[in-house]
Amino acid sequence: MRYRDSGVDIDKANEATRAIARLAKNTWGPEVLSEIGHFGGLFEVPKNYREPVLVSSMDGVGTKLLVAKAAGKFDTVGQDLVNHCVNDILVQGARPLFFLDYIAAGKLEPSMVASVVSGLALACKENGCALIGGETAEMPGLYQHGDFDLAGTIVGVVERASVIDGSSIVAGDLVFALPSNGLHTNGYSLARRVFEEAGLSIDARIDEFGSTVAEELLRVHRSYLSAVTEIAEKVRIKGLAHITGGGVVENLPRILPDGTGARVHRGTWPVLPVFDYLARAGDVVEGEMYRVFNMGVGMLVVVSPTDAAKVPERAAGLTVYRVGEIVEGDGSVTLV
Amino acid sequence: MRYRDSGVDIDKANEATRAIARLAKNTWGPEVLSEIGHFGGLFEVPKNYREPVLVSSMDGVGTKLLVAKAAGKFDTVGQDLVNHCVNDILVQGARPLFFLDYIAAGKLEPSMVASVVSGLALACKENGCALIGGETAEMPGLYQHGDFDLAGTIVGVVERASVIDGSSIVAGDLVFALPSNGLHTNGYSLARRVFEEAGLSIDARIDEFGSTVAEELLRVHRSYLSAVTEIAEKVRIKGLAHITGGGVVENLPRILPDGTGARVHRGTWPVLPVFDYLARAGDVVEGEMYRVFNMGVGMLVVVSPTDAAKVPERAAGLTVYRVGEIVEGDGSVTLV
Repeated sequence: MRYRDSGVDIDKANEATRAIARLAKNTWGPEVLSEIGHFGGLFEVPKNYREPVLVSSMDGVGTKLLVAKAAGKFDTVGQDLVNHCVNDILVQGARPLFFLDYIAAGKLEPSMVASVVSGLALACKENGCALIGGETAEMPGLYQHGDFDLAGTIVGVVERASVIDGSSIVAGDLVFALPSNGLHTNGYSLARRVFEEAGLSIDARIDEFGSTVAEELLRVHRSYLSAVTEIAEKVRIKGLAHITGGGVVENLPRILPDGTGARVHRGTWPVLPVFDYLARAGDVVEGEMYRVFNMGVGMLVVVSPTDAAKVPERAAGLTVYRVGEIVEGDGSVTLV
Repeated sequence: MRYRDSGVDIDKANEATRAIARLAKNTWGPEVLSEIGHFGGLFEVPKNYREPVLVSSMDGVGTKLLVAKAAGKFDTVGQDLVNHCVNDILVQGARPLFFLDYIAAGKLEPSMVASVVSGLALACKENGCALIGGETAEMPGLYQHGDFDLAGTIVGVVERASVIDGSSIVAGDLVFALPSNGLHTNGYSLARRVFEEAGLSIDARIDEFGSTVAEELLRVHRSYLSAVTEIAEKVRIKGLAHITGGGVVENLPRILPDGTGARVHRGTWPVLPVFDYLARAGDVVEGEMYRVFNMGVGMLVVVSPTDAAKVPERAAGLTVYRVGEIVEGDGSVTLV
C-alpha cells in the first residue's frame, strides 16, 4: 500500500519513499483517479470499449534476481518484470492499463528499493501503463540478509471481439518472429551454472558478447507492445506466442488449435552469440537449448499466407523474420 | 501462469496441478471468459456499472507465514491473504472481481502449494471473487529449504459515484467497529517474540485462548465484505478503515478530512484475550499495543449521526459496536 499512502503521508515519508511516489505518479494518466479522496489506486475503465475484457497476469523474474544481486544492479529487473508481464497479456491482444509490484526482503535497503521502482516506473511509462500500487514487505525471518524477491501483476484491457487466442489458426498459416536481445527472463539457472563451471565471474568480459557476463545476462527483457501494435495495424494477427520458459517448442503449441502443428526453420533468424556460447561452454545439446532458452526469438506472430506480403520488414525498430509455417499435426513444433 | 496453462496442459499435468486448476475453476463465474480459446485469465467488465472504476491492491501476509510454517498448516494463510485484500479494496467501496497469487519457494512442495491454493480458493469463493491466475516460482538460490513467500493481487470494481473516500466526514459523525477475531495479519513479529520469551512452543495450550498458540495465531483474517454490504443497505457509509499495521490510531486518520480528528472510547468493544495476554506476558505498554495490534477491531465504519439509529446491531453475524466519534482536530485519533 506504498503508493496509496503517499497522498496522505508524503510529507512525513522519508526521501526514498517520496522518490518512489514521484516515480510512480509520473506514470499516471488521467484514468488514475488520484483526485478522489486520499487514496490512489482507482483506475477508470476506458470508455472507448464496447465490451471491455480485463486480462491480467502475475509473475516474477525468477533467478535473474540472483544475477542482479551479484552485480548490485537493481533497476533492470524492474524493467524485466514489467516488460515480461506486458508481453504475457499482449498475446491475448490486450494493452496494459496498470501494474502493481511486490518487493520483499529481510531488510529493505531504501536505495535498492528505489532502484527497482525506478526500473518499474521507466518500463511502465514506456508501455503506457500506470504503476498504481505496490507492497514492500520486510521479513527478517524469511529472507536472508541481502536477499529479496520481486513480483508484479499487470492488468490490461482488450475489446471482447478483438481477443487473440489462436483459434483461427489453420495449416498453411505463416509464423513470423520478433527477435529477443538475450535470455530475457528464462534459463538463468542453467546459464549461471555454465558460467560458474567455466570459472567466469560476472565481471568477466567476453569478447563475443561485446560485454561482461553481467551485462549480457542483465539485458532488459524486450517489450513487444510497439512492434506487435505496428504489425496489427497492417495485418490481422491470428496468434501470438511469448517465448518464455520452454522456448519456441513449448510456447507456440499453447496457441495451436487441435489438428495443427508447426514447423520452425533454424537459420531463418540470428541466434544470439550468448546462446552459441552457452551451448559450447556448457556442452548443452541442441534440443535442451531450444527448450530452456528463447534462442533469439522473443515473440512469434501467426498470420494468414494471404497477409504475408503485408507483414512489415521492420516493426518498432525490430527486424521481423519469417521463420516457419503451420502444418497439420498433433500440436507439436518441429525444428527443421 | 499456472491456471492459464491448465486449459492446454491439464491432461499432462500432475495430480497436484490438476487439483489446483479444479480449485481455481471452482471460483469462476460467467464473467471469466474461459471458453475463449485456450487461455483463462479473461474477465469481462461487469455491464451493470455506469462508470466502472477498478480498485486494486497487492499484499502479502508478512511473518504470519512463519507461524504457518512452524505449524505445518498452509491453508489458512491463503484465506488470510484473500480476506486482507478484500478488505483493502472494500474501504473504497469496491467489491472484488478477481484475484491472482504468487507463491515462491526454494523447492515447491506440491502438497503445501495445494494447501495454500485450497485456502485461496475457499476465501475467493466466499467473497464472490474469481481466482483467475497465479504464478508458482521455484528459486533454490533465493529461498532456503522449507521457506516460501506468498503474495496476491485483488482487482475489484466500484461505481464512480459510489467510491467511499471519507471526504464527506465531518465533526459529529459517529464511528462504529466490526470485531476482529485475533491478530489478523499484523503484529506477528512482536507476538512471536513474546511467546518465544515466555518459553511457549506453538503447540502449547493457553487456557484463556481456549486453544493452542498456533491455533490462536493462525485464526483467519476476517473478511468484512458481507457485514459492510449489510450495513451499506441500511445507511450511507461515509468512511471505512481497515485496521492493519498501525492499529486504530494510524489507520483511521487515513480517511479523515483536514480539520477533523477522532475520539475512540476504550471499553466500548471487547478486547480479545490474546491482546491482554500479549500486553501482560510481553510487558508491552498500552500505546504500543494500540499501534501494533488491532486490539479487537477489524474495521471501522463512519456514519452520520442522523443515520446512527439505522445502523444494525449485528451485521453478517458480527456485533456492530459504537466506539467513538469524529471531532474537530488535526487528523489524529485520541483514545479516551
